[in-house]
Amino acid sequence: MSKVLPKQLSIKEFYEKGDLFFVPHISIDCVIFGFHTGQLKVLLLKLKDMKEWGLAGGFVFYDEPIEAAAKRIVFERTGLTDIYLTQFYTFGDPSRQRGKGKLKIPQGTKRDSWINQRFITIGHWALVEYSKVVPIPDQFSSACEWVDVRKVPLLMLDHNTILEKALQSLRISLNDYPIGKDLLPAKFTMPELQRLYETVLDKKLDRRNFHKRMLSLGILKKLKEKKKGGAHKAPHLYSFERRAYQKALNHGLKLGTS
Amino acid sequence: MSKVLPKQLSIKEFYEKGDLFFVPHISIDCVIFGFHTGQLKVLLLKLKDMKEWGLAGGFVFYDEPIEAAAKRIVFERTGLTDIYLTQFYTFGDPSRQRGKGKLKIPQGTKRDSWINQRFITIGHWALVEYSKVVPIPDQFSSACEWVDVRKVPLLMLDHNTILEKALQSLRISLNDYPIGKDLLPAKFTMPELQRLYETVLDKKLDRRNFHKRMLSLGILKKLKEKKKGGAHKAPHLYSFERRAYQKALNHGLKLGTS
Repeated sequence: MSKVLPKQLSIKEFYEKGDLFFVPHISIDCVIFGFHTGQLKVLLLKLKDMKEWGLAGGFVFYDEPIEAAAKRIVFERTGLTDIYLTQFYTFGDPSRQRGKGKLKIPQGTKRDSWINQRFITIGHWALVEYSKVVPIPDQFSSACEWVDVRKVPLLMLDHNTILEKALQSLRISLNDYPIGKDLLPAKFTMPELQRLYETVLDKKLDRRNFHKRMLSLGILKKLKEKKKGGAHKAPHLYSFERRAYQKALNHGLKLGTS
Repeated sequence: MSKVLPKQLSIKEFYEKGDLFFVPHISIDCVIFGFHTGQLKVLLLKLKDMKEWGLAGGFVFYDEPIEAAAKRIVFERTGLTDIYLTQFYTFGDPSRQRGKGKLKIPQGTKRDSWINQRFITIGHWALVEYSKVVPIPDQFSSACEWVDVRKVPLLMLDHNTILEKALQSLRISLNDYPIGKDLLPAKFTMPELQRLYETVLDKKLDRRNFHKRMLSLGILKKLKEKKKGGAHKAPHLYSFERRAYQKALNHGLKLGTS
């Protein structure tokens, strides 16, 4: 039960005896969403021996906490650091490894090898400003790219289901937690904030209701300065109230009921 | 890898060779909350060979979906059926089986037995009307009782942490999903609905804000009849709009942003 994976392990050796290093039956998949004004993308990888694309996934060392494993996997597979990951659902259907996009195990791998057994996978998602991060594929992948969430192809295993559920979880989380601190400039207008919500939700929102609700949350500070430039009347600038924002991140947003 | 566990398996045999039946490294824990006006309780079990109480937990057969396993475990441990369980978090800290409330393994069980290895546990919660359900302990348990959530003792393993996180998840879910259909009478007053929210959230809510927000969700129907009896002015009765309620259960509540 060594904690360190020898760098020189070939894919075949990894499939054969990975359970010397990793907990069997358990994997992790990370759905990394990338936001840029008006666009929501997701980070996909292509394994060298696979036709299908997939999410950034991997396994858990015997003595490694789940959160640490998720961070390590994202770093190893894409080169990305400092990503805040939210665990959202664990997928464990016995049939999830069968079907069209199943993993291509190298010929000669034993049938009872750990990799051929049932895995449950712990799903995580993150939302980042995608122009700020340049992903780099690892040695097992031939590509690592941002793909529009509305144009995602057939993915390996049950990764389409995982992505769908992650998107649902991200959207529901807008009711519960604040969003925007790392996705908008430090000073922003209400239309910019609304655009962020509309992009994630993939629908138009009523301007007045949105404005009213955002102010009711108590996490915004209206600034004295207005946005310069542009043909229209200069719009007000806002920034986040740092402490109220952090409190809402930890305890949930203040709503009529809570 | 038989799917059926022989009924006559002793606890010692179960600890010794349970992995002939169950997926190693994976367990399930269920936090069953019981609501009754003004009171929120949680269902706790006491294993025959343990000093501490614990949640209703168990393992997953090799070919069994996670959801089915969770339902089966609740039924086997407590006799409860038709419980709607929400998966909320997977706990996987490598140290979660160590410490004060660790499982008491029968003497003579091999050190490398499946039960002595690392487990990650998939947490579920449910909310039921506790006067409607009478739990019955299984053969491994000496007791199965409803305990006030504010009076929960030290539990086995990391079950206090799991309970705390389940309570957090239940409370946050009030922002996202409707609640009350199985917990209130078919016709209820606004104060009764508010009492339900206050009990789950364990705090007082502003009457007018609550009223306004509940009506804005579009899941309530104001009835023509009023509640009879009582010294005060007769309050209006409400019922849930069945279709809107079901839609909100599936897709989340309509809020200012979504």
